[in-house]
Amino acid sequence: MTELRWYGWGTIDKTYALDHRPDAWNFLRAALDLRGDESFPACDFNSLRLRAPRLTDAQLNALRAMTSPGAVKTDTPTRVLHAYGRSYRDLVRLRRGEIPHPPDAVVYPATEEHVERVLTFCAQNDIALIPFGGGSSVVGGVEPRDERVTITLDLARLNRVIAIDEISQTATIEAGIRGPDLERELNARGYTLGHFPQSFEFSTLGGWIATRGAGLMSTGYGKIEALTQSVRVATPRGVIETRNVPATAAGSSLLQLLIGSEGTLGVITRATMRVRRLPKTKDYRALLFKSFADGVAAIRLMLQRGIVPATVRLSDEAETRTLRVFALREASRGWKEFVERIALRYLHARGYAFERGALMILGFEDSPLTGAGLTLCKSRGAFDLGHGIARAWLRDRYETPYLRDVLMDRGILVDTLETATTWENVERLYQELGRTIRQSTEGTGSRALVMTHVSHCYRDGASLYVTFLARMARGREIAQWETIKRAATGCIMANGGTLSHHHGVGYEHAPWMDRENGAVGMDALKALKGALDPGNVMNPGKWLEAGLSSTDVAIDYQERFWNRTDKR
Amino acid sequence: MTELRWYGWGTIDKTYALDHRPDAWNFLRAALDLRGDESFPACDFNSLRLRAPRLTDAQLNALRAMTSPGAVKTDTPTRVLHAYGRSYRDLVRLRRGEIPHPPDAVVYPATEEHVERVLTFCAQNDIALIPFGGGSSVVGGVEPRDERVTITLDLARLNRVIAIDEISQTATIEAGIRGPDLERELNARGYTLGHFPQSFEFSTLGGWIATRGAGLMSTGYGKIEALTQSVRVATPRGVIETRNVPATAAGSSLLQLLIGSEGTLGVITRATMRVRRLPKTKDYRALLFKSFADGVAAIRLMLQRGIVPATVRLSDEAETRTLRVFALREASRGWKEFVERIALRYLHARGYAFERGALMILGFEDSPLTGAGLTLCKSRGAFDLGHGIARAWLRDRYETPYLRDVLMDRGILVDTLETATTWENVERLYQELGRTIRQSTEGTGSRALVMTHVSHCYRDGASLYVTFLARMARGREIAQWETIKRAATGCIMANGGTLSHHHGVGYEHAPWMDRENGAVGMDALKALKGALDPGNVMNPGKWLEAGLSSTDVAIDYQERFWNRTDKR
Repeated sequence: MTELRWYGWGTIDKTYALDHRPDAWNFLRAALDLRGDESFPACDFNSLRLRAPRLTDAQLNALRAMTSPGAVKTDTPTRVLHAYGRSYRDLVRLRRGEIPHPPDAVVYPATEEHVERVLTFCAQNDIALIPFGGGSSVVGGVEPRDERVTITLDLARLNRVIAIDEISQTATIEAGIRGPDLERELNARGYTLGHFPQSFEFSTLGGWIATRGAGLMSTGYGKIEALTQSVRVATPRGVIETRNVPATAAGSSLLQLLIGSEGTLGVITRATMRVRRLPKTKDYRALLFKSFADGVAAIRLMLQRGIVPATVRLSDEAETRTLRVFALREASRGWKEFVERIALRYLHARGYAFERGALMILGFEDSPLTGAGLTLCKSRGAFDLGHGIARAWLRDRYETPYLRDVLMDRGILVDTLETATTWENVERLYQELGRTIRQSTEGTGSRALVMTHVSHCYRDGASLYVTFLARMARGREIAQWETIKRAATGCIMANGGTLSHHHGVGYEHAPWMDRENGAVGMDALKALKGALDPGNVMNPGKWLEAGLSSTDVAIDYQERFWNRTDKR
Repeated sequence: MTELRWYGWGTIDKTYALDHRPDAWNFLRAALDLRGDESFPACDFNSLRLRAPRLTDAQLNALRAMTSPGAVKTDTPTRVLHAYGRSYRDLVRLRRGEIPHPPDAVVYPATEEHVERVLTFCAQNDIALIPFGGGSSVVGGVEPRDERVTITLDLARLNRVIAIDEISQTATIEAGIRGPDLERELNARGYTLGHFPQSFEFSTLGGWIATRGAGLMSTGYGKIEALTQSVRVATPRGVIETRNVPATAAGSSLLQLLIGSEGTLGVITRATMRVRRLPKTKDYRALLFKSFADGVAAIRLMLQRGIVPATVRLSDEAETRTLRVFALREASRGWKEFVERIALRYLHARGYAFERGALMILGFEDSPLTGAGLTLCKSRGAFDLGHGIARAWLRDRYETPYLRDVLMDRGILVDTLETATTWENVERLYQELGRTIRQSTEGTGSRALVMTHVSHCYRDGASLYVTFLARMARGREIAQWETIKRAATGCIMANGGTLSHHHGVGYEHAPWMDRENGAVGMDALKALKGALDPGNVMNPGKWLEAGLSSTDVAIDYQERFWNRTDKR
């Protein structure tokens, strides 16, 4: 695999070519009130000085003996790559070279027995253990947060497709497999899992399950908890294996307790997943609605009438404007095709405009209801833009995270957050969240560009996904971001959203878990954690035993900006 | 409401008219090797002598003061109706008049505050508390199993539809509402929950959720855990209310932990349910396959191709034969219509026969794929029998439980059990389970009639539902049944089935929970129970803290019949 970008997203051979998008930079300068002299480069990798690993030679040798000689790494590049996930806070600290708590070692088990041995070793030696898939967490899910010696368990070598049951259409797969490898093996047999999160290229099956992830096609294929038939989890008290059955009434769901546990109960080592035959036909196209509200209503009606696309994704007016600016690049085949085919003028004449419209990507796979879906959207005023834009979206769907690094280079704060709520509440939460982010960003001395889309849709509601950009408050980058993040999260919790629809909890969302589940519910889950992990070695300091409760942090989403300089 | 049948199913004004089915009795006599002199009448209700209620007058008055004067009952009819569920074991004991452990009182809360007060009272006074919905449990879910004073909390008065959110298509409903009342209120607003278990007329929303139930249309509408958006549960440690959102990634699923908890963690007092618009079109029809295997393959292919009927239900050859015999009654409109329209002779000429075919009920609601489903079935050899039989099935679908009482009157053991497994394993488990029930019944000196259907179907598998009949071993009715039940359950667990797909666990399935979840998983769930219910007052002696483990009971499904007389 190509070398990973230690301070940012993906591999170093790839970037997001902002230079080829002539209008993009001018648009951002104006929108964010940039002065043009901002820049926030990463420090020199060679200047990084990590704390020496705190494992003894005897311990390291024991770890090698219970796995394999090459399975235990303590070199700086490996520890740096496992020190953080990929949240904005993480990327700021990496660029600054602030890595005070890297893991003391990274262990790469090759078998489930290796995992169990390392787990037992950690429990016996009071060593914290962090399961690690792709490291793409944006909520602090894989960061060492414990003063104890810490081992990160990278599951990359547990990457086999063990068996495919073609009759039941399930596949039993080891947890460390990455998206592209998984799909390649399934595709070769004619199947797909249909799980394509934006982190797809780097994230793993185990990570998806541990965080209750959702893919871009989750409206049709389902969220990961719907795709998972069973899991095998190694805990400090022993292995739990749930039954390979389509459904059960055998008490509370142990499976749905392990899904979403984020490494705090044990290590997911394998899972049996529901797979499907590769679709024979796909119809992905873009539609332009006259307003976000029109598009939201169309999605709701589609879903409630049983017209279920693989993906449906509706950008609000602000995101639609921005997408158009960013899409107008030199090599933009999809848009070129469209621009050539239907002049913008034609659209304008009919009352449509990218400046005040809402763009929808609507994709059906093997669906006899494609036409019905289109008809319904048109009845709500949608203009069919054809396949070009949707093809470009499909092609480029994993590129956006690279843009974040390019923007951060230029001194721009950029982050995303997401939630889900009922249809009845979508508009209110959308408005409230946008206002909160704009206001709290203003409080930090910057102007925010806030863009939202609806995606991951259900009969009863949908996810809201928000991207926000602002000029970095230099010297106070993390405090600035925390102000906005806390305000936004407080707003979500106060206005009927869930703490997260697919990013997970980690430690960044942990303070609000009492509010999500209630203190009684959290106490019960913590007691369960205590039974499985009495020594609290499994991913400590995260959601299930985080010391913080919602009363410890200011969740007033009008909170004023902390006028201080970041200090760790 | 009409008076309930204290020793059997439903109301006393209804019965299953075996007398009007001239062939049925002769068929059963032959199949079960009946001698004709069997009978097992219920004892005289007036001969029942219950233990005096063990609550003091002060306690009873306190309970009245915290609820309402009429809310606390200790009369014999009420206590008898709340002493058992409706399993075969329960019905045998009722007929014999064996009720050594009735609840000491039955309390009918009218508000959620009443529930919380009674719960606190029980926790403070070390009184066991059993939440009670319709009392239709067939797994011992509502029976007092604790030596302590026991109160049964009948939720019948908590029966309001609180609110319907027409935008999100959800309804917030109190837990004690019964099926017909719930559907009537929803239907009046144009909606349906789509949950129609066989117990529909008597069971409650809270009971469905507490036991992870499934309705006859669950293939299309989903099992209750898919229909439940959120719950409110009163526990001894306080109230838990999960968030009203379509999906979440906020850690392990607290919601899916409360669903299926069977009253052992707390009392479900309300839930927000996903409802749908009433279907505009329905197409229910019967098909005849040449074999059970052909039909199973057709269902699997339908589901895996995205053709999802509301209901699909395939009887094996034995059940098909029996259904035909029982359906040929005087007033059988559906069958008459069919018999008149297509002569059996015509079917025979084409190689179809009820004697060796498999009957399918296939129902689509508002589906554009009805034709595709039919075409697929026909490509697998199905003969379309039209709408008549299906209409009769729909009309009579809640009648079968009444038949059980009629058969027990005549000295026939009759019970059902169910599981779910993957498509790959359906045939093997089906064969093994049938053989096991026949053999273990033979070991008790009787001949079994075993009938199975596939229902509640998924992309990856389906439920197997087995009905078995045999001549009662008089004087040893319960021992005979236990022998068969244990053998069958052992067989399910040894052959890849789940302990239950929709009946639940109660105490009858509890001994196998270690095998279903593993001892580690059960220890974790028990720790969670300890945190919510430290005094173990919530439905004690059931699945979550049953003392029995799978090693305590003989689960060898070849186990020999216990040659002893039942004694409690």
